[in-house]
Amino acid sequence: MNKVIDPSLKSWIEVNQDSDFPIQNIPFGIFKTPGGDSRAATRIGDKVIDLYSLALHGFLDGLGFHPDLFKCETLNAVIASGKTACRALRTRIAGIFEQSNPLLRDHPEIHGEILFLAETIQMLMPVKVGDYTDFYSSIEHATNVGIMFRDPANALLPNWKHMPVGYHGRSSSIVVSGAEIHRPKGQTKPDNAELPEFGPSRQVDFELEVAFITGRQPDLGTSVTTAEAEDHIFGLVLFNDLSARDIQKWEYVPLGPFLAKNFGSVISPWIITLDALEPFRVSGPKQEPAVLPYLQFDGDHNFDVQLDVLIQPENQREQLVCHSNYKYMYWNLAQQLAHQTVNGCNINIGDMYGSGTISGTTSDSFGSMLEIAWKGTKPVKFPDGTERKFIHDNDTIIMRGYCKNENLRIGFGEVVTKILPATIHQSRIINQ
Amino acid sequence: MNKVIDPSLKSWIEVNQDSDFPIQNIPFGIFKTPGGDSRAATRIGDKVIDLYSLALHGFLDGLGFHPDLFKCETLNAVIASGKTACRALRTRIAGIFEQSNPLLRDHPEIHGEILFLAETIQMLMPVKVGDYTDFYSSIEHATNVGIMFRDPANALLPNWKHMPVGYHGRSSSIVVSGAEIHRPKGQTKPDNAELPEFGPSRQVDFELEVAFITGRQPDLGTSVTTAEAEDHIFGLVLFNDLSARDIQKWEYVPLGPFLAKNFGSVISPWIITLDALEPFRVSGPKQEPAVLPYLQFDGDHNFDVQLDVLIQPENQREQLVCHSNYKYMYWNLAQQLAHQTVNGCNINIGDMYGSGTISGTTSDSFGSMLEIAWKGTKPVKFPDGTERKFIHDNDTIIMRGYCKNENLRIGFGEVVTKILPATIHQSRIINQ
Repeated sequence: MNKVIDPSLKSWIEVNQDSDFPIQNIPFGIFKTPGGDSRAATRIGDKVIDLYSLALHGFLDGLGFHPDLFKCETLNAVIASGKTACRALRTRIAGIFEQSNPLLRDHPEIHGEILFLAETIQMLMPVKVGDYTDFYSSIEHATNVGIMFRDPANALLPNWKHMPVGYHGRSSSIVVSGAEIHRPKGQTKPDNAELPEFGPSRQVDFELEVAFITGRQPDLGTSVTTAEAEDHIFGLVLFNDLSARDIQKWEYVPLGPFLAKNFGSVISPWIITLDALEPFRVSGPKQEPAVLPYLQFDGDHNFDVQLDVLIQPENQREQLVCHSNYKYMYWNLAQQLAHQTVNGCNINIGDMYGSGTISGTTSDSFGSMLEIAWKGTKPVKFPDGTERKFIHDNDTIIMRGYCKNENLRIGFGEVVTKILPATIHQSRIINQ
Repeated sequence: MNKVIDPSLKSWIEVNQDSDFPIQNIPFGIFKTPGGDSRAATRIGDKVIDLYSLALHGFLDGLGFHPDLFKCETLNAVIASGKTACRALRTRIAGIFEQSNPLLRDHPEIHGEILFLAETIQMLMPVKVGDYTDFYSSIEHATNVGIMFRDPANALLPNWKHMPVGYHGRSSSIVVSGAEIHRPKGQTKPDNAELPEFGPSRQVDFELEVAFITGRQPDLGTSVTTAEAEDHIFGLVLFNDLSARDIQKWEYVPLGPFLAKNFGSVISPWIITLDALEPFRVSGPKQEPAVLPYLQFDGDHNFDVQLDVLIQPENQREQLVCHSNYKYMYWNLAQQLAHQTVNGCNINIGDMYGSGTISGTTSDSFGSMLEIAWKGTKPVKFPDGTERKFIHDNDTIIMRGYCKNENLRIGFGEVVTKILPATIHQSRIINQ
């Protein structure tokens, strides 16, 4: 079976030239039906395709998926069917919607049960995330942060070029695109203050990231090699790793970021499979000094995914603030997963692994406001006359990702996050 | 309904004077029946009590628990029934097993379905842990680490007395007592080396901790106050937070511990409810300087739980290496949960929150080998003539916890962890 769906294939569903979802993409997600059920889905053009209905009508027969598997709140059980089964599923779906296939095309009476207009339905969290790790794998980002907060002459810490540095994140606060997140409150300590103070963060920031979702669960004590890593990865999403810089600065020594990072972490709803990204595989930056054997790898494990970040102040038009690319990653996903498991740490289906902020070499490719406005010294001007060093209340952050060559565009869609003002009351819990 | 079961109550199940599980304890756990099913259970003396069988026989009627709720792989759904319902359940169980109650006592023909000898059955993970946070709340431990690794004159970092410093841990690698964990492999960099090296950790250590398990799940954006915190806490377990010191030292700057802490984290199987610990509530250390308002609290939130750590080399007798107490905690559990959620971070039922290593003021009360052997400078001698700076291969670490006054002993049982040699092969995965 081919990993890649023939780039010349066309669908009988109309697909605009600039659509992220041609018949070659076939991503996976979860949507809420007009009746309120949650279902596994894929998407072609602006049509969300209900896999449960498709299965009920027999279109997925013989693949080994029971229809009920697609009547689900998360994709975890679908992913657990294995990469080979999911590859066969994508191939089948492409076949059903290929323009010359009349089987469903010529039965418009059932289209209403299977096809939903994307803008009319709500997408839900695609997976139940068990554990979430955030890496720190962009050399440009790590260097920028090192210059700003430590020593410009020794911006990278000694371990950085020897391992994909990462830390455990919070799973509970990962939510799907469309989230409205209150500005977090917490402790901060201004440089000139004697004591810390408590209040809403003044430095809420985005971090532009791509995250991979794992699709297998080896036992505790098992390590995954770089050669095996991609077999354990189901696909990728866009990820806005919201951060409160002032909270982070005061709390993070010595045990790392905590409340600065767990008030809301937002992902895009469609998981783009590695198979769909295959045509956009590229080599990564040269790693110097040579890495330890367990981090060495064969082949290309970087992907040419163009990434845009836009900020939309309330009732204003969106403005591009960053254009970056996932291909800049110094440490690739195979190395990240090999590192994560080299000590025997077990992974589960649905775990999420963020890339870390993806910055390029120029200031218009930096993946956070911290870097773009260079610690507040270079505020970004907006058409309405306002300036931004960080994110303002009621700003909406929009991230988009897409791969493009002369024949094909495979996109991620977008991840949209609105920042609301801090809540006034500390608690809304009523005793049981 | 009383939180506390009358200390003078006796059970018709025999309970030795030094048992951790008198009729006043009534903890919750999950065990595997001889038939291989997993069931919710409690324990009195050396008898594990199958709550599913108890419910099937009608003993739990009228409490609102469907018997099937106890035929479960984890306690999460039982806990979700709420604190009031679980309090009524404990009270009912105490009534059934109270010595004068003949209802079950005088029907020995069904005892075999309900009562199992603890040493003959296997305990399983009591909850599915969604997220796990590890705090760092013992002032003695933080000071010891600061003296050893940073500056003896400024051992505590500036933020330490202003917030319960914590970090996100890995949930997937939390396992239950009885675990056999391979020594982890990873990167370390000896002080005199130019480059890092790869191999088995030479500094595997235990950390003596107590962890609380949450029992409610407020929405993202909600904060839990110190006054509300205990309503959100279901109970406590003992926790051996295994650590690889040499891996930690090289990896942890700037984002915190990662692979040093996620190769196996071991908890005791019985969750001891806060209600059972009520008679052992004590005040904590005075907090100076005063903490910010959101961390202030009324009442006592420390607990007098005596804690022992023993090490048993293979084929040798166990030796006590530490006697500490949970009451030493500088930051209490109400403050920890208020801090965790002050930014709106959501918690879930079954989440776990570790105390951090619990050290006392004297060297025989230090909660890790790092401190007991003072960074390797004071090795611990064993009866077989061996010495230990850290944990050796095939050593078993045993932690015990218990509260005791003149009338009552409420115990946690134990958490037992065996360290096996590092695995030779990096991978045992076979392609699908």
